[in-house]
Parts: sequence; structure tokens; C-alpha cells
Amino acid sequence: MPVGTQATVKGLSQRDLADDLGVSILLANTYHLYLRPGHESIRRMGGLHRFMSWPNAILTDSGGFQVFSLSGLRKITEQGVVFQSHLNGDLHTFTPESTVDVQLAYGSDILMVLDECPEYPVSHEYARESMHRTVRWAGRAHKYYKSRIEASLTRHALFPIVQGSMFPDLRRECAAALVELEAEGYAIGGLSVGEPRPLSLEMVDATEDLLPRQKPRYAMGVGMPAELPEYVARGVDMMDCVLPSRNARNGYLFTSEGRLIIKHARYKEDEGPVDEKCQCYTCRSYSRAYLRHLFLAGEMLYAVLATRHNLRRYLDIMGEIRHAIISETFPEYLRSVRSACADAG
Amino acid sequence: MPVGTQATVKGLSQRDLADDLGVSILLANTYHLYLRPGHESIRRMGGLHRFMSWPNAILTDSGGFQVFSLSGLRKITEQGVVFQSHLNGDLHTFTPESTVDVQLAYGSDILMVLDECPEYPVSHEYARESMHRTVRWAGRAHKYYKSRIEASLTRHALFPIVQGSMFPDLRRECAAALVELEAEGYAIGGLSVGEPRPLSLEMVDATEDLLPRQKPRYAMGVGMPAELPEYVARGVDMMDCVLPSRNARNGYLFTSEGRLIIKHARYKEDEGPVDEKCQCYTCRSYSRAYLRHLFLAGEMLYAVLATRHNLRRYLDIMGEIRHAIISETFPEYLRSVRSACADAG
Repeated sequence: MPVGTQATVKGLSQRDLADDLGVSILLANTYHLYLRPGHESIRRMGGLHRFMSWPNAILTDSGGFQVFSLSGLRKITEQGVVFQSHLNGDLHTFTPESTVDVQLAYGSDILMVLDECPEYPVSHEYARESMHRTVRWAGRAHKYYKSRIEASLTRHALFPIVQGSMFPDLRRECAAALVELEAEGYAIGGLSVGEPRPLSLEMVDATEDLLPRQKPRYAMGVGMPAELPEYVARGVDMMDCVLPSRNARNGYLFTSEGRLIIKHARYKEDEGPVDEKCQCYTCRSYSRAYLRHLFLAGEMLYAVLATRHNLRRYLDIMGEIRHAIISETFPEYLRSVRSACADAG
Repeated sequence: MPVGTQATVKGLSQRDLADDLGVSILLANTYHLYLRPGHESIRRMGGLHRFMSWPNAILTDSGGFQVFSLSGLRKITEQGVVFQSHLNGDLHTFTPESTVDVQLAYGSDILMVLDECPEYPVSHEYARESMHRTVRWAGRAHKYYKSRIEASLTRHALFPIVQGSMFPDLRRECAAALVELEAEGYAIGGLSVGEPRPLSLEMVDATEDLLPRQKPRYAMGVGMPAELPEYVARGVDMMDCVLPSRNARNGYLFTSEGRLIIKHARYKEDEGPVDEKCQCYTCRSYSRAYLRHLFLAGEMLYAVLATRHNLRRYLDIMGEIRHAIISETFPEYLRSVRSACADAG
């Protein structure tokens, strides 16, 4: 899922995303859109799909991660979390119930429960306490959500989030408790918070046998291109990540041959595309030399074209994975990705 | 002509420009592209059209205006101008001959001669001296250009530039001298340098009867939407201006009802398009409320969509003008534009 924090994937139009790249679902941010333009505003304008002219699905995270990473001041109680807007310092409160309201105002297709995402590293004791609160919050959110949508004809889904920092026992305890809710899908949160990469995968492994296989499993905030099949190998169906778009803007392009740093002098007169094997508009139309020129000149079109390419690369990898699964060659595919990584050092 | 200073119209892809907006010619900047990536680089990569993947025509200005407005240090001699790069302070020289070489390396369809663009205001004495030098430079550029393209099968055009600051007598003397060159077209430069608007039009008026009517006449660096028909009424065929793209980025949108300042609170929940009468992608797909949200959030997509709309507005105005001329209703059209302006105060 491409990340559209502020109801926009940076630099790309909804037509670029839906028609050109074939994006079927994107992630928007509950916290950011709650602060600006505000969920009531969006509700009055017919919801997020209509507000941003997006024809396909939208998943909104609950805002928990942003509250913990962006807001200046925050206070967690059993009731919820009080936080200060990073925009103007105003105080706001998110509760498990209020974030369901906010996301229903957006008209999100997939809502996430409010969770606490502890920083890394954290003590086992704190992680346990926090995880238990996240489980209680998930129960409240789930109950409230059921009551709110009872009379509704619109279909949504609400995903609880497995937490437990980097402790497999807590992860398993959390997953076992959340499965009781019989939710439509499950997310694995609290990853990509600074831990070593193998640890993230280990945390996904820890709950693989507990989370229902017939329901979508979503690893939040991952990962690098070579990691995508690793997550899928551990039973993950959905991922979101700012890496393709953020790295694009910073001059790092993902290709079938590895990473390309566009500012390098060797590309000054390189008339080839970013990736010979890529069919995106950027690769079909522009040279490395032109992209390098735009990057060095600080031109907006660079970010537009680079983001387009990197998202295409991620979508292509997911396509390769799907193809490998369907043709029952996924183990070979995974081995080939691992061996290419080992070769690249 | 949209302005693509660094071989890109800020934020728009070549497909947006050519296919969606129907832009048939754009302006690129000799000075900027000479400094980065360099004209020899562009030549080796097959010229500017190929470098930037642009299928239609390109006009490049000679760099004179930028030398005089951007470079830290400059020294004008009869030979040419020595200037300091605004990027790294390196010294460079432009002569009437070298700027022809540079523009031929780009493969420009329309080249401009090197001219001096004096600041405003300037004494009659200096303006006269400067204009005479510009005329001598035009003669040299023209002669050199003829010798360079003699053996060439490629068709280009080289336009001399009428100068003379805000003195009608100097403008007329300049135009009369340049007409002797029997160039493919003529430009009127030295406008939009800080003079009052009526004075710019007066300077165009001053040479209207001297510049050949059967050849394109190009007013450089103008103008606001309501001024376009005023220039056409004075015999101008071509214009370029950064206003539609720069104003778009700064939050000013041009509509058939006048200017719209997108950040205004009144658009917070305005679900209408920027301009009900506009057929651009932005107006067909997005609301004022969404554009305002993107603008306030500092999102790149705002600039992309706003530029697209403002360029469409300019192209629509030029389309209306062409239609009025063909249907022999231009005087009525001009009156209606003037009366709408008077109403708007």
C-alpha cells in the first residue's frame, strides 16, 4: 500500500495512482487528517474517498503511532491518550471509541484500532503493561465499532494490532487475546521502530501460527524491497511503507538490479532508463541523465517521476510474489531474492 | 508558451503538457541549461528535445536576461558579456556567436539573439548606447547563424530582440535596424522589468507598424490574463510568462471569474471545482476544499494540480482569442475583457 499521509501520495495524482500504477488500496493517516482539515469537515464533504477523489480502497491507521512519534506532549491513561497537536500545540484526546468515530467519518474501508506503539528498546515490564492496555483498548474499539455499524449498510473492517515490543512471549499473548475478537483481519504493529531487521521478522514469526490464515494479516510500516518476500514467507498479506516514496524524493531509486543513487556523476550522460526491465511511465519516457539533472536542479518533476518509478517497483515485486505463489514456485523465488541480496553484500 | 526554465515546467510531466494540455511549444532557458547540465552534454545526448523527451517545439532565450538578473558579477564589452555563475561563481563568457552555438547544441527550434536587457529606469543616453550594441550583436549573431546552418538540413529560426528601454524613439530606431536582417520573426524584449503596465503596452505599440506583420512577433515575459488580448490587439503573436506556473505555486488561481486565492477560509468545505467552466484535469477531478487542504499542508500535489489548471486557463484564453480573430469578433471580445476588468476594479 502506498502511503498517502495527508490524503495524497506525495507528488502523484489520483489518476497516476489508480489508472497508471493500478493501486487498489492506499493508506491515509487518521492523526494528520484529524488535525487538518478535520474529520467532521471530511464527513460533511462525503468522506475521504470523495474529498480526495480516490476511486479505490482506503485504510486508515488509528493515529496511535503518530501520537507517540510526533506530538510534543502526551499522557496515556486507561481511558485513552491526551496529546498536543504538532501543528499548533492544541490539546486533543484519542480514545479507542473516538478513533473509530473519526475513521467512520472518513468512510475508511479498513479501520485500525487505537494502540500504543512503545519505543525501542523498552523493558519487558513496560512492554507487558502497554500490550495489556492495547488489548483492552482493542476490545473497547471492537465493541464500539460493532454498535456503530450495526444499523449501517456500508461495509468496513476493523483490524486490531498485535503489540508486545520485541518479546515473543508478549507478542503471542497479545495475538491470542486479539483473536478472540474474531476481527476481519489482524495487523502486526510496533515494527520499524529502530530494532535490527532480523528482529522485526522474528516478531512476525512469533505469531504466525496464532493469527488466522484465512484472514488478511498486515505488517505495518515495512519494508525494503528484498524484505517484502520475507514477510510474505511469514504469512503476511499486506504491508505499507513510506520507503518507496521517501527514498525516491531523496534520490534513491529501486531497480531490478538493486539500488541506484541518481546524483552519481556516472549518470550525467546516461541515456538509459532507471531500470531497463521497468514498464513505468518514468522508465518508458526519461533517461537517468534527465532525472539526475532534475534532481540536482531541485526540480519538482524529479520527485514526481522518481516516486512513480519506485512505487511501480514495489508493485512489481508484489506482482512477482503473487505470481510465484500461484505458480507454486514461491520457495525458489524467495531463494533467488536471498541469493541476489547475498551477492550484493 | 509555458516556461520550462530548467528543461521542465515545474511539476508537470511532458505527457501532461503535450497530451493533456496540448502545449505545442515551450520555452527553455539558455543560461540555466548552459550552466547545468551544459550544452555540450545536451548535444551529446541528441539535443534538448531528446534529453527532456519533449515531442513539440522549443524556443530558447539567449540568456541575456538571466545574465543581467541572476549572475553576481558581469562585465559588458563590445565582444560580449563576462558573467559569474549564480551556482558556483565560475566565470563564463557569452558572445552573440557563442549563444548561437549553445542554442544549436540544444537543437532549439527558435533561437534568440544575445541582447542586453537594461534595468528600469535607465537614462535615455544609456538606453541608446545599449540598444545600439544590441543591434550590432544581433547583426553578428545573424551572420554567424547563417554560416552555421548553411550546410544543415535542420530548420531553425533566429529571432532578434527589440530593445530601447521605455523610449519609443529608441524602440523604433531598434526595430527599423533589426528589420534589415530579414529574420524569421521578431521579439520585443525589455518588458516586465518593473515599469508600469500601460508603459509595456505603449512600447509594443511603438513598433507595431515597423515589425513585419507576416512574421511572428513575440512579446517576451508577459503577461496577466487580461493583458493577453491587449498584446494581441497590438499585433503580438507569441508570449511567454512564468505567471501561470509561479502564481499557481503561490496559491493564486486564474479562473473565468477572476483570481481565486486558494488558502481563503471560505474554500474550506467548498466542493466545487476551481472553475466551473474549466475542462482541465484538476477542475474535472478535485474540489477547492481538497486543493486548499493540499496547499495548507505544503503538499507537492497542490503545485502539480494548480499549475495544470493555470496553464489550461492561459491556453483557453489564447484559444478564445484565436476563435475571436477567426470569427472576426475580436474587437467585441477585447471590449468584453476590458469591461470585465473595469468591473473587477
